[in-house]
Amino acid sequence: MSAGKDVFGDRPESTPPTPPQPFFRSRWVPAPEHVRDLGPSAGLPAGFRAAGVACGIKPSGRPDLGLLVCDAEDPVSTARFTATGTPAAPVLVSQERCRLDALRVILANAGCANAATGKRGLDDAAKTQGAAAMAVGVEEAAVALASTGGISQYLPVEAVLKGILAANGELRREGDADFQQAIQTTDAFEKRACLEVELSSGPVRLTAQCKGAGMISPRFATMFCFVQTDAALAPETAELLFGVCVKRSFDRASVDGQLSTNDTAILMCSGASGVRIAPESEDELRFGEALDALLRQLAILMVADGEGAARIARVVVRGGQLEGVEAVARSVANSPLVKAALHSGDPNWGRIVQAVGAALLGTAPPAVDIALQGIPVCSAGAAIPCDEDALAEALKAKEVEYEITLGGRDGIHAETEVFFSDLSHEYVTINADYTT
Amino acid sequence: MSAGKDVFGDRPESTPPTPPQPFFRSRWVPAPEHVRDLGPSAGLPAGFRAAGVACGIKPSGRPDLGLLVCDAEDPVSTARFTATGTPAAPVLVSQERCRLDALRVILANAGCANAATGKRGLDDAAKTQGAAAMAVGVEEAAVALASTGGISQYLPVEAVLKGILAANGELRREGDADFQQAIQTTDAFEKRACLEVELSSGPVRLTAQCKGAGMISPRFATMFCFVQTDAALAPETAELLFGVCVKRSFDRASVDGQLSTNDTAILMCSGASGVRIAPESEDELRFGEALDALLRQLAILMVADGEGAARIARVVVRGGQLEGVEAVARSVANSPLVKAALHSGDPNWGRIVQAVGAALLGTAPPAVDIALQGIPVCSAGAAIPCDEDALAEALKAKEVEYEITLGGRDGIHAETEVFFSDLSHEYVTINADYTT
Repeated sequence: MSAGKDVFGDRPESTPPTPPQPFFRSRWVPAPEHVRDLGPSAGLPAGFRAAGVACGIKPSGRPDLGLLVCDAEDPVSTARFTATGTPAAPVLVSQERCRLDALRVILANAGCANAATGKRGLDDAAKTQGAAAMAVGVEEAAVALASTGGISQYLPVEAVLKGILAANGELRREGDADFQQAIQTTDAFEKRACLEVELSSGPVRLTAQCKGAGMISPRFATMFCFVQTDAALAPETAELLFGVCVKRSFDRASVDGQLSTNDTAILMCSGASGVRIAPESEDELRFGEALDALLRQLAILMVADGEGAARIARVVVRGGQLEGVEAVARSVANSPLVKAALHSGDPNWGRIVQAVGAALLGTAPPAVDIALQGIPVCSAGAAIPCDEDALAEALKAKEVEYEITLGGRDGIHAETEVFFSDLSHEYVTINADYTT
Repeated sequence: MSAGKDVFGDRPESTPPTPPQPFFRSRWVPAPEHVRDLGPSAGLPAGFRAAGVACGIKPSGRPDLGLLVCDAEDPVSTARFTATGTPAAPVLVSQERCRLDALRVILANAGCANAATGKRGLDDAAKTQGAAAMAVGVEEAAVALASTGGISQYLPVEAVLKGILAANGELRREGDADFQQAIQTTDAFEKRACLEVELSSGPVRLTAQCKGAGMISPRFATMFCFVQTDAALAPETAELLFGVCVKRSFDRASVDGQLSTNDTAILMCSGASGVRIAPESEDELRFGEALDALLRQLAILMVADGEGAARIARVVVRGGQLEGVEAVARSVANSPLVKAALHSGDPNWGRIVQAVGAALLGTAPPAVDIALQGIPVCSAGAAIPCDEDALAEALKAKEVEYEITLGGRDGIHAETEVFFSDLSHEYVTINADYTT
């Protein structure tokens, strides 16, 4: 590793761009029939412009400041933030000084998280919010902030102010690719989508830019996800759909079980398509399906881009009570022993039993059934014969599925899932083999 | 790694023995003045004999079966077990079929955990309990079982039965070193002590054999610890002292946050010294201090022997409420990001802030103070200037201390600590680079 590498602030220059491939590519997210992948160059929905510039936050000189603007007269938005007890300054400012249901601007930077920066961090964030509002010509309360990078570093405010002016001069519909570059840190590939959703009264566009690779926690992903659409949604509809879809996607993803100080997800709706999505309509359902598939695929891409990840898994847990099922799923997904076994394709399901037990402290031992890639290996807590060669072959897949049933098949009243990545040497390399 | 290595069952043959060094060697455990280290060859207290043999459980042919016997007429004992919801068969049999306050025999094996083995595992464990009782000539209820090794493997009962006969023929006061060898798995060095404790009515001996390197969790260490003394303790005194000392030692240790299915800690008292420890006496205090120092040093040695560990740390957390203080300490100790930073001596305390916040979900941001090795780096949630060269030098220590204060120094009503190890490439190598 080069001595100057700032892992939280940047990727090595040599990372090659990933060749274009279909956006929906996980076995766990079938593309809805009414959703079309427009490819990465299609641009933002009508009513949106974006830009990404290098303003000098990242030592490497790579893009580090993104600006995204909604030009609609009456925009609708909704947002979700990290649940941490130590939120970063941009999260606090966005939560406390914004009209989150009517955002017009997102100012996002990589290379500095502006977290653990106290009063000065709040002042710095407020200054950049004010500058972006002035540059774009909107009220301060319409500007949301998002920062990612090293914790405990102060934001270089002067550089950001210059960057805002530069980015404001470059805003365009096709600016989402530049915006994406400017919000990435340790991401190995871009997580971005341009989709078209066929509704009864016509097509709408749905785009998203997403970043995240480390500090990805199951409680709410440590990441940014910015979503835009030219569909017209009432604020309540946007809030409802986005809330549910975030819970089913980023909330179910874990790279390392580490909750960030800066998680931010924002949906903005320009209404510029003229297609209105009425509450409880068939179109609300269709749009919701598209949003759900979009966020789930992005969450899975984020896990697949987990620091050092070579392989990802989904653990599905079924049982009598949601609380126990949830605890078991997270215990398995965050176990370094299970993650190391996933990495090597090791059929060592004893580690799964260990993680199950650790989540059910002091309870009576439940009958545990386990299947790996659909192959049953454990019934009522004891091994059952299986084709070991077939199992070894099945565990070589890029996407591995673990199924756990607690207390037998008759008592199933709850089910949950968590997506997670493996534990590799590269995770240690990225996180230990350097000094910040 | 050799293809046949069973990481949970054995160490590579080439591991060199650690040269003798003082038992009390952590900065966090000063040796009490009335406690003398007799060195590893002193042997067990009067009234105890032990042996360790190779009976064929470990594929390597190394020692894998230990037998420890208390010959006292009226022995006193107490035990603690894993809190997991999926306890192994030997744990269930020991808990349900033993008189835990009057144990005479410990039958322990490495190379197979007899966990996730269902009804057959319970039957197998009961058979070995019966055989040990018959060989030694005691009741079955006086024989505790402890197994460690691969989960989901069945115990080779015939081999164990032969091993019991062989071990029974080799029992001797100096057998604790062989016993120690037979209970180790991935341990890189032995964790064993022979101490003399000066009491008002004379000296007593206090010995212990301890194993554990992976699946070490903060809730209760994933390990064995067998402790013997020739002092005479009432059952209530043994129970009280051992309970408190286990909570202050193994309960505060974490290698990887993974709770095992097989944790077992047992104190046995032969009374053969004739020295009686009366409840609420000065000698109870002195014996308790010795037991406390013994178990804390063993717990720290276990963490230092954590799979792949190069460096260990203590996190001390102070704040207003025990619940929050406890959650923060465990969040920091189990954070792979903090552990990776510990490994590299990285002063990146932003990761500590992140772990603090993750433990305090949805609460109002507390003022967080952080000191590394006694050097303050963060006050009220923001960086404060410090001598970075001195800090970098201090973080090269083998034992690193993190202090976290929540909510300012005036509101401190609770304090806790957790000992933990770093995250290294070798942890990944040990746990991922092989297939069981």
